[in-house]
Amino acid sequence: MPCQVVKVADVARPFITELKTKVATLPSPPLLLAFLANDDPAARKYAEWTAKTCADTGLRFKLVECPRTELEDRIVAANANADVHGIMVYYPVFGGTQDGYIQNTVSHRKDVEGLCHKYRYNMYHNIRFLDAEKTEKCIVPCTPLALVKILEHVGVYNRVLEEGDRLHGRTVTIVNRSEVVGRPLAALLANDGAKVYSVDVDGIMELHRGTGLKLRKHEVFETKITLREALAASDVVITGVPSPSYKIDTAQLKDGVVAVNFSTAKNFSDDITEKASIYVPSVGKVTVAMLERNLLRLHEYLVKNQGRG
Amino acid sequence: MPCQVVKVADVARPFITELKTKVATLPSPPLLLAFLANDDPAARKYAEWTAKTCADTGLRFKLVECPRTELEDRIVAANANADVHGIMVYYPVFGGTQDGYIQNTVSHRKDVEGLCHKYRYNMYHNIRFLDAEKTEKCIVPCTPLALVKILEHVGVYNRVLEEGDRLHGRTVTIVNRSEVVGRPLAALLANDGAKVYSVDVDGIMELHRGTGLKLRKHEVFETKITLREALAASDVVITGVPSPSYKIDTAQLKDGVVAVNFSTAKNFSDDITEKASIYVPSVGKVTVAMLERNLLRLHEYLVKNQGRG
Repeated sequence: MPCQVVKVADVARPFITELKTKVATLPSPPLLLAFLANDDPAARKYAEWTAKTCADTGLRFKLVECPRTELEDRIVAANANADVHGIMVYYPVFGGTQDGYIQNTVSHRKDVEGLCHKYRYNMYHNIRFLDAEKTEKCIVPCTPLALVKILEHVGVYNRVLEEGDRLHGRTVTIVNRSEVVGRPLAALLANDGAKVYSVDVDGIMELHRGTGLKLRKHEVFETKITLREALAASDVVITGVPSPSYKIDTAQLKDGVVAVNFSTAKNFSDDITEKASIYVPSVGKVTVAMLERNLLRLHEYLVKNQGRG
Repeated sequence: MPCQVVKVADVARPFITELKTKVATLPSPPLLLAFLANDDPAARKYAEWTAKTCADTGLRFKLVECPRTELEDRIVAANANADVHGIMVYYPVFGGTQDGYIQNTVSHRKDVEGLCHKYRYNMYHNIRFLDAEKTEKCIVPCTPLALVKILEHVGVYNRVLEEGDRLHGRTVTIVNRSEVVGRPLAALLANDGAKVYSVDVDGIMELHRGTGLKLRKHEVFETKITLREALAASDVVITGVPSPSYKIDTAQLKDGVVAVNFSTAKNFSDDITEKASIYVPSVGKVTVAMLERNLLRLHEYLVKNQGRG
C-alpha cells in the first residue's frame, strides 16, 4: 500500500526534544495550573495524561480541583500569582456561553489554551504578534496549532513559498466548525493561503484570501457547494466528528488526498489507505506538545516583562 | 384589589424626559448603529421599535443590514468610526459561542448593550467604574438594568440604606439564568445586598454577600433548596421563561410579594393580583430607555476622551 500512515508520536518527538532542551536551561521550570471543576472522567484522564507528559518534559503541572462556584475567583487569584505561568480549564464547566465568560477571565498572559478573546481576535484577523516590535508571537489554540504542525510535517505546507502563504493552491475541507477546533483551524489555514471548506450540520462555509492571496486576512463566504463537491475538490480532508457512526465516504475523496482525523472516533473507513497518500488517524500527542510549547512561550514573555516592569 | 399593577411606561417616562433634556443640549445627537444579520422577524420588530423610540428622544439610529459573514468586519469598522457612538447587534447571528466572540468584538467604548467581557467582568465583580477617579460608570446590560430601575421605582430598593447596600434584607427569586438577563441580574441584585435564588432547569444557585454584607462582592453557592421553598422565602419573584405554558403557582408565593415578569410570555397566572402587593407584567419600554441611557453615557465618555487625546 503506498499510503503513509503517520504515527503522531513521530510528529510530536522533535517538539518534545526541543522543549526538554529549553526547559533544562531555565533556573526553575514553568508551572501550569489546570482547573478541574467538573466530574467528567474524560477531563480527569486528559489531566493525568498532561501531568505525565509535563513530568516527562520537566515542566511543573498542578491540578486544582474546586467546585465550579469557586472557579472564577481561583482563576483571578492565579492570574495575579507570579509563580503561575500558565492556566488551563477543563471544559465544559457550566456549559454554553457562561464557559465563554470563564475563558475570557483567564489573563491572556497565562492563557496556554489561546481561548481568550484577544488571541481569538488576532488569529481570525491574521495578527501574529502581540507587540508592534514582533517579539511576542500570539498564542494559538493547541489542537488547531497541532493540526498546522502535522500539515507542515506531511508536506502540505510548501516551504518553497513565503511563510504565511505556504498553503497557496491547496484546497482543504474541515468537517467540524466548533469554536475550539474547527472554526479556528479553518481561519488559520485560510490565513496561510488555503481555500477552505468549513463543514458542519448547518451547511458549508468557504474561507480564503481571494485570488492571488490579494487579501491580508481571510474572508468568509456562504456557499451552496455540497459536501460531495467539496471533498472531490480537496487536497486535504480533516475530520472531527465525535460520533463513531459518522464516516467520510472514501469513494468521494480525491485520489492521493491527505486525510487527517482529530476526533476520538474514527471518521475515515479502513479503506482510506487505498485512496489517501497520507493518513493521520489521531493528533492528541501533538496537542499536548503544543500546550507545553505555549506554556514555555508565555513563561518567556512573563520573565521578559517582569525584567522590564 | 389592593395589588398595584405597574404600567411600565410610567417607570420609563422620567428617564425618557431626562434623556430628551440632555440630548437637546448636545451640538449633535449621538448615533446608534444596530446590526441586523439574521432574518428573525422579532429582531426586525425590535429594531423598528428602537428606531421609533430613538427618533422620539432625538437620538440618531441607523439599522445596518448585512450578511452574517460580513458582520465582524463591519463591527471593526464601526469601532473605528468616530461618528458612531453606540453599537448593538441583534442576536442570535451564528448562535452559541460564536455569538460570544462577536459580542467581544464590539469595543467597550461603544458597547451600549454591556455584553463585552470587560463590562460583564466588572458587573460580576461589583466594580462600578471604568476609571480609578470614578468618573466613568460601567455599562450594565439593558434588561437587567431596566429590572433594577423597576425595583427602585416600586420601593424594593430601600433609600434609607447606603447606595450599593439597598437590597440588604431582601430575598429575591429569579426564574431564568441566561447570560443576557438572568445571571447578570442575579449578580446585580446580590451585589446590591439581596439574597438571590437563581433558578433554571438544571437547578437553583444562591448568591449573596454574606451575613451583614461582609463581602465586597457576591459569592455563588450551590443549594439544595426547592423552587417551592425559594418562592415561599422570597419578597420579590422575577420571571423570564419564554414559554406560555410555564406558570408560577400563585399559591406558593408569599403574601404581598412583588412579582415581575420580563418574559414575552405571561409567567404569572391572572390570580397573581390576589396575592402580590405589586405586579409588573412587562419591562420592554424601560429596556429601550436604558439602551438610550447607555448610548448617552458612552457618547459623553467618547467626547470627553477625544478632548483629552
